[in-house]
Amino acid sequence: MNANLIIGMAKEQIPTPALILDLDIFQANLQRMGAFFSGPVKLRPHIKTHKCPIIALEQIRAGAIGITCAKLSEAEVMAEHGIRDILIANQVAGYGKPERLAALADGIDIKVAVDNKANIDDLGRAALDFGSRIGVVIEVNVGNDRCGSRSFEETLDLAHHISAKKGLIFKGVMGYEGHCVFTADKTARSTACRSANKILVDSAEMLRSHGFEVEIVSAGGTGTYDMSGIYPGITEIEAGSYLFMDGCYSGIMGNDLFRPALWVLSTVISKPEPGLALIDAGMKSLTHEFGLPQPLLSGAVLKGLSEEHGRLALLPEADYLKVGDLVYIWPSHGCTTVNLHDRYCVVKNNRLVAVWEIACRGKSQ
Amino acid sequence: MNANLIIGMAKEQIPTPALILDLDIFQANLQRMGAFFSGPVKLRPHIKTHKCPIIALEQIRAGAIGITCAKLSEAEVMAEHGIRDILIANQVAGYGKPERLAALADGIDIKVAVDNKANIDDLGRAALDFGSRIGVVIEVNVGNDRCGSRSFEETLDLAHHISAKKGLIFKGVMGYEGHCVFTADKTARSTACRSANKILVDSAEMLRSHGFEVEIVSAGGTGTYDMSGIYPGITEIEAGSYLFMDGCYSGIMGNDLFRPALWVLSTVISKPEPGLALIDAGMKSLTHEFGLPQPLLSGAVLKGLSEEHGRLALLPEADYLKVGDLVYIWPSHGCTTVNLHDRYCVVKNNRLVAVWEIACRGKSQ
Repeated sequence: MNANLIIGMAKEQIPTPALILDLDIFQANLQRMGAFFSGPVKLRPHIKTHKCPIIALEQIRAGAIGITCAKLSEAEVMAEHGIRDILIANQVAGYGKPERLAALADGIDIKVAVDNKANIDDLGRAALDFGSRIGVVIEVNVGNDRCGSRSFEETLDLAHHISAKKGLIFKGVMGYEGHCVFTADKTARSTACRSANKILVDSAEMLRSHGFEVEIVSAGGTGTYDMSGIYPGITEIEAGSYLFMDGCYSGIMGNDLFRPALWVLSTVISKPEPGLALIDAGMKSLTHEFGLPQPLLSGAVLKGLSEEHGRLALLPEADYLKVGDLVYIWPSHGCTTVNLHDRYCVVKNNRLVAVWEIACRGKSQ
Repeated sequence: MNANLIIGMAKEQIPTPALILDLDIFQANLQRMGAFFSGPVKLRPHIKTHKCPIIALEQIRAGAIGITCAKLSEAEVMAEHGIRDILIANQVAGYGKPERLAALADGIDIKVAVDNKANIDDLGRAALDFGSRIGVVIEVNVGNDRCGSRSFEETLDLAHHISAKKGLIFKGVMGYEGHCVFTADKTARSTACRSANKILVDSAEMLRSHGFEVEIVSAGGTGTYDMSGIYPGITEIEAGSYLFMDGCYSGIMGNDLFRPALWVLSTVISKPEPGLALIDAGMKSLTHEFGLPQPLLSGAVLKGLSEEHGRLALLPEADYLKVGDLVYIWPSHGCTTVNLHDRYCVVKNNRLVAVWEIACRGKSQ
């Protein structure tokens, strides 16, 4: 908690830069996605977007079957906060990491992605040492060309390798269609997504034809939740960004279904000449790899970020801005923006109603 | 502290991604800059680079007269850790901020930049309310065209406004030549720097001619410390990045005097095909606004970052890399990279010898 945040204070009194979460919009996004996945296909949202145990628990209350994490240290924090069903959707490798994973698996249902035999050996050995069992899904490259098995032959070989380990439980396959979640044209996105889904589901069918039980077939981001989420054979979806709807996703998907809920509140600290204002939010409060984030202010354009300054070019209609005025900035990329902040200032009816710690911030290990 | 970090462990056992500080090189950089400023011009290093009270105290032990901060919340943390002489080199404005500054000024020597009369009014009122006195320097635009007074007339007007406030103490002027610290050609950098220095020193002389006592004339970054630091009339220098020497500054200045001391240690988590390795450090551990950071590994090139992955293209000479191998990445921009991490893993003789908390990480308020 922070000595300068008092529940009930007017949102204009929150010290800036502050990460503001609009509770009503957040709840609407949460419920809408929960409703979409109330059928046989389930939601296992990726918590890399919010990194907040309170939000993860809200997602589970809204129907999610568990959570997806990017990293072991995120999973450790989430487990400490009572989450019992976790998929780590990346490989866990390196000194001491399999052992930490095996320790974590003693008590909760943990699953981890693999794409490498030596890593499977390490995980199996650690699980035996700790007397626990680690669930394993094979990551399949579905066109994103990052990690993941490159062929059916390799996938089958990995499955055999996993099933030979007493400490591991083969659970299924996962593949992230990250190469098409941001494709603006919906038809093109859908076509590319189906091709990706086919590789993944065909991999699952191939494994079943060799006698493997494939319980999990996991895919999907916010840009493809309604494509992968209806593709026959996919069992669960990892979407996460739907909660906040940053500028990037809103530009692709519109804001009819899911609405922007996350803002960085900033203050004008200098107005040195006509047409120019400097705000107190820079690269240490906002990210810009998906383009410069923009103010919620007609006639103002964010032209650049330095470490602790944002540079607003003002048309005459916005040139009334003065030192001390507040400006809301809409993040272009929610996931990385959240990772810069320690807490959400949760706002409803123009008041601070809660402060939610971002307990997984910086948990990249 | 972190349960997975044990003092004395081999550096190969540190969980990755980890921010590694080479203690010997850090100490050499620290002492070298301290020696440069052992004459009449003083060093007041900017702690936005390291955000770490332990390092700030080391800088003071090495001769610095105090520290420079970017934000009020950084200054609050540094004051809690015993730093007694602080310049906040930006404007402190917005609800509650002047009051916090006035509270902080009761007991320590605090100075803040101003460029606006309304802000001066707010600071003066808060200081009176709290019975403290806030030191004030006028920020002068020396060509960076961000914040700061745009003319001698404006500077003089601001000085009169400050001197009329009982709660404020006029201390001098500051100006950051940020528009030329990264100019690669040293002659061009020096020429541009002298032009910037002249504006600042002339502003100080102008104020003295009107009867103002100008104690502080503050300028300088790492790229210009040896230019601004010898310009007649400059009294103190704000350089900070010299401690770490990131890829950007090293590209401009070379590594003869100050040497790279900061690394992000990463682990290969996937080796899915020849010529490609994925490491566990992405945009949540490394920044890239100054270009992609690069590995300390011959034949390997970092081609891209996603949130939790770095994509290494490998020439045949580096294609031996396997899952679990460690790769050191040299940050291209130390200041923003540090702001992603919670602690420095301080390494000497290949062992972890200390863990230094980055207590000002995220302190952008």
